[in-house]
Amino acid sequence: MGCAPSPELLATWNRREAELISTTKLERVVAKPPEPTNVHAGSASEEIKQKVGREGARTVPGRPEHGGNCDIKNLSRGSKTFLPIHVPGAKFSVGDLHFSQGDGEISFCGAIEMAGVITLKLSVMKNGMKDLDMKSPLFLPGPVEPHFGPSRYLTFEGFSVDEKGVQHYLDATVAYRQATLRCIEYLRRYGYSDYQVYLMLSCAPIQGHVGGLVDIPNACMTLGLPMDIFDFDISPLSGTPKKLDMGTCAFASS
Amino acid sequence: MGCAPSPELLATWNRREAELISTTKLERVVAKPPEPTNVHAGSASEEIKQKVGREGARTVPGRPEHGGNCDIKNLSRGSKTFLPIHVPGAKFSVGDLHFSQGDGEISFCGAIEMAGVITLKLSVMKNGMKDLDMKSPLFLPGPVEPHFGPSRYLTFEGFSVDEKGVQHYLDATVAYRQATLRCIEYLRRYGYSDYQVYLMLSCAPIQGHVGGLVDIPNACMTLGLPMDIFDFDISPLSGTPKKLDMGTCAFASS
Amino acid sequence: MGCAPSPELLATWNRREAELISTTKLERVVAKPPEPTNVHAGSASEEIKQKVGREGARTVPGRPEHGGNCDIKNLSRGSKTFLPIHVPGAKFSVGDLHFSQGDGEISFCGAIEMAGVITLKLSVMKNGMKDLDMKSPLFLPGPVEPHFGPSRYLTFEGFSVDEKGVQHYLDATVAYRQATLRCIEYLRRYGYSDYQVYLMLSCAPIQGHVGGLVDIPNACMTLGLPMDIFDFDISPLSGTPKKLDMGTCAFASS
Amino acid sequence: MGCAPSPELLATWNRREAELISTTKLERVVAKPPEPTNVHAGSASEEIKQKVGREGARTVPGRPEHGGNCDIKNLSRGSKTFLPIHVPGAKFSVGDLHFSQGDGEISFCGAIEMAGVITLKLSVMKNGMKDLDMKSPLFLPGPVEPHFGPSRYLTFEGFSVDEKGVQHYLDATVAYRQATLRCIEYLRRYGYSDYQVYLMLSCAPIQGHVGGLVDIPNACMTLGLPMDIFDFDISPLSGTPKKLDMGTCAFASS
Repeated sequence: MGCAPSPELLATWNRREAELISTTKLERVVAKPPEPTNVHAGSASEEIKQKVGREGARTVPGRPEHGGNCDIKNLSRGSKTFLPIHVPGAKFSVGDLHFSQGDGEISFCGAIEMAGVITLKLSVMKNGMKDLDMKSPLFLPGPVEPHFGPSRYLTFEGFSVDEKGVQHYLDATVAYRQATLRCIEYLRRYGYSDYQVYLMLSCAPIQGHVGGLVDIPNACMTLGLPMDIFDFDISPLSGTPKKLDMGTCAFASS
Repeated sequence: MGCAPSPELLATWNRREAELISTTKLERVVAKPPEPTNVHAGSASEEIKQKVGREGARTVPGRPEHGGNCDIKNLSRGSKTFLPIHVPGAKFSVGDLHFSQGDGEISFCGAIEMAGVITLKLSVMKNGMKDLDMKSPLFLPGPVEPHFGPSRYLTFEGFSVDEKGVQHYLDATVAYRQATLRCIEYLRRYGYSDYQVYLMLSCAPIQGHVGGLVDIPNACMTLGLPMDIFDFDISPLSGTPKKLDMGTCAFASS
Repeated sequence: MGCAPSPELLATWNRREAELISTTKLERVVAKPPEPTNVHAGSASEEIKQKVGREGARTVPGRPEHGGNCDIKNLSRGSKTFLPIHVPGAKFSVGDLHFSQGDGEISFCGAIEMAGVITLKLSVMKNGMKDLDMKSPLFLPGPVEPHFGPSRYLTFEGFSVDEKGVQHYLDATVAYRQATLRCIEYLRRYGYSDYQVYLMLSCAPIQGHVGGLVDIPNACMTLGLPMDIFDFDISPLSGTPKKLDMGTCAFASS
Repeated sequence: MGCAPSPELLATWNRREAELISTTKLERVVAKPPEPTNVHAGSASEEIKQKVGREGARTVPGRPEHGGNCDIKNLSRGSKTFLPIHVPGAKFSVGDLHFSQGDGEISFCGAIEMAGVITLKLSVMKNGMKDLDMKSPLFLPGPVEPHFGPSRYLTFEGFSVDEKGVQHYLDATVAYRQATLRCIEYLRRYGYSDYQVYLMLSCAPIQGHVGGLVDIPNACMTLGLPMDIFDFDISPLSGTPKKLDMGTCAFASS
């Protein structure tokens, strides 16, 4: 959900993401630059279409200046969103509805995609970006959400020490990854495959919380798994789990 | 809150944190190694005291293997915590009670410290670490917490693009820092100093959530500020704020 | 929602409600006995149809032995209901979906009726009525509901003293009626007609709570009105209300 | 919690409660009129003391015009209460703190009484009773409460048919009593005595809700019992309960 960028903003995005691509030493895809092949540009002229292919922002990822593909769990019924406007007419767009998702979209494509209709009411706050000192979207989430009670979240903790035992400096990303791995190990005992848990965490209303970010060198994050989404009791107090046959609803590739 | 490390675990901590200190290029203190001066070791012998000074873990930070100084907001009345045990007798300790704190302990020392008495019930789960496949603590938070309703959290969003416009790769720490800066800018309009907001965010029951972690290159984090802790209406819908005299309850040093 | 009564249970209902009708001194309709005219009995024989007209239970009201038209606000998505079974095959039926309703169905027909599809999973607990010592339905509400936070309910209080100043003895019905009247008076100041408030309270997610039932002679009930369903601030702290033109979306008859 | 009545208001209370006493046909104490013996009147003159004995309101019950002994579960930390004022100086008083209580104060003296200190901030709303059209107190409950999630309340339902099978007309008091009896029957299966359950329901954070009040002739009320206050699983899904020895922590008198 977001408003279209101005040409200047689009140029900023392309510059800073290109810099990341050119300077990273990670052996993986670190950003999605404009893609000249298979351009979807409706009935635009060939010239425009080529320009879109060379410069157009792709929908992955969300970006601070407009929101975009932000995948925030509770942006649901009754939410209010305050979006910066960069071009005349705003050019608001929205897409990619999820039936259910957890905090973090852990397996990337794991949230349950759905068809749907969104009812939106749009209004303009004149001078709003300046009045709200606004550099990124603001939200007032809606009042309707699944609500399990704080004591029904089995909560895993991760720190910025990775699975090889390497100490990172206040790294919340490593910490949340570790909390996720703790959860996978826990659920493996019931017969779930790692991949099944990845998908479950992407789709279930898990809560990813910031524990402590500043206790050098260990940032701490927690992942809360609602115990009431299971048909059996996963509480640590319920005794040694029996391995169940969880079927093969999802296959792990290599 | 945690149980004492074994000598092997203590050695692991000292090794991995020393490696971070020796390899970091950041010009700041990145970890707190053992500190031979001003050792607090009770009535221990001089030999033990020197050993504590050379090898003993300091209470900052929390660590995955035992929990420790984990500063999780909702570990309050009625919580259950499952802790790994590393030495005979467990040597459980607890400390550093907070009257109130937010997710992330944003200003490091900002949570409101308090004197207090904790009533704990301890029991041992024989073979528990293996049965729970446990490499870090597990929590079941308690049912009592301040509860404002999802729609009363004014929610700021941060992405892994820092304040200089540099793009980072899926960096949740940068993203949460950016969400915090958005909140500071917002509250500055009411007359709060930056430092006052830092302290407020450390002490108020803010919610730091994981938005999306995997939309390359932009990890996304949100910070939810409960609007009902203010004496005046801070909703974006309440019109242009008047700057108030917020006094000098906290001074910013250079 | 309920299972069909046995002939014996149906006879019990008809007997006890007929007794109420014959003994009441209230000058109003106090119960809905079987209605021989305009019988809906599908393709049943004339004989059966006449029997239905003479003995059949009407869907108003709910009854303890089977649930029926119970209009409980939170029996929504994800609920589990445990129903007594009185005849072979159970003959479960369900109907009358509400888009939104408040506790108490204050104006009788005020909840917002809707078309809809319910997905149900039915299973039988053998010997369940005896095992659960069950004389009326049990519920486990679902986790999804509008959730405004306890401090956002403006709460009106009623006691068992009626509007003529007559003292009743521990009468919760009078008390809840009084709480409702207090709410109507409060909202009248904003320009709502009494009838508009009646409808609003029937449709909005208000919370009707039992305060104290046993402080002779004054039972106490409370009605919590979520302030966040209004477009303007109805808090007692927001100053003298301006009367608004609330239109004529509902007319009061004499 | 309340402000003192004016002489006129006190006379109203005494008149209407005396009328109830004189007209009731119930063979029980139905109200607590002024009590001339054992008057507590501090250092007042003998004349005043006798007047208090003849006319003074006793603290049972709460009354609509001032609140008084209202025993509302969530009037706790952070609440705001708006009270009518009847005499110069208001003469506010407060007392009878409860450590924990359920909706309805089911066993009358069952809430857990406690010593305590209340911190109050008082301010005067000039013309407030008229501005708020106020005939009884208003409340904004506080944000801190035990919170178990809607799906963790085992919910019993009662209708206005009493235990002798007599049909009452829209009687919420009978309905809530029936819901309570259903809960007692349910918990009896675990070995609790009826009296133990009465005390438990008075002290535990149960939720008494208004189901439907207007489906003639059956008012409906629900009682929600939080399952997470038990050390064992009381869910209907957890199988036939074992009778436990619940001890004799409370004795039932005849």
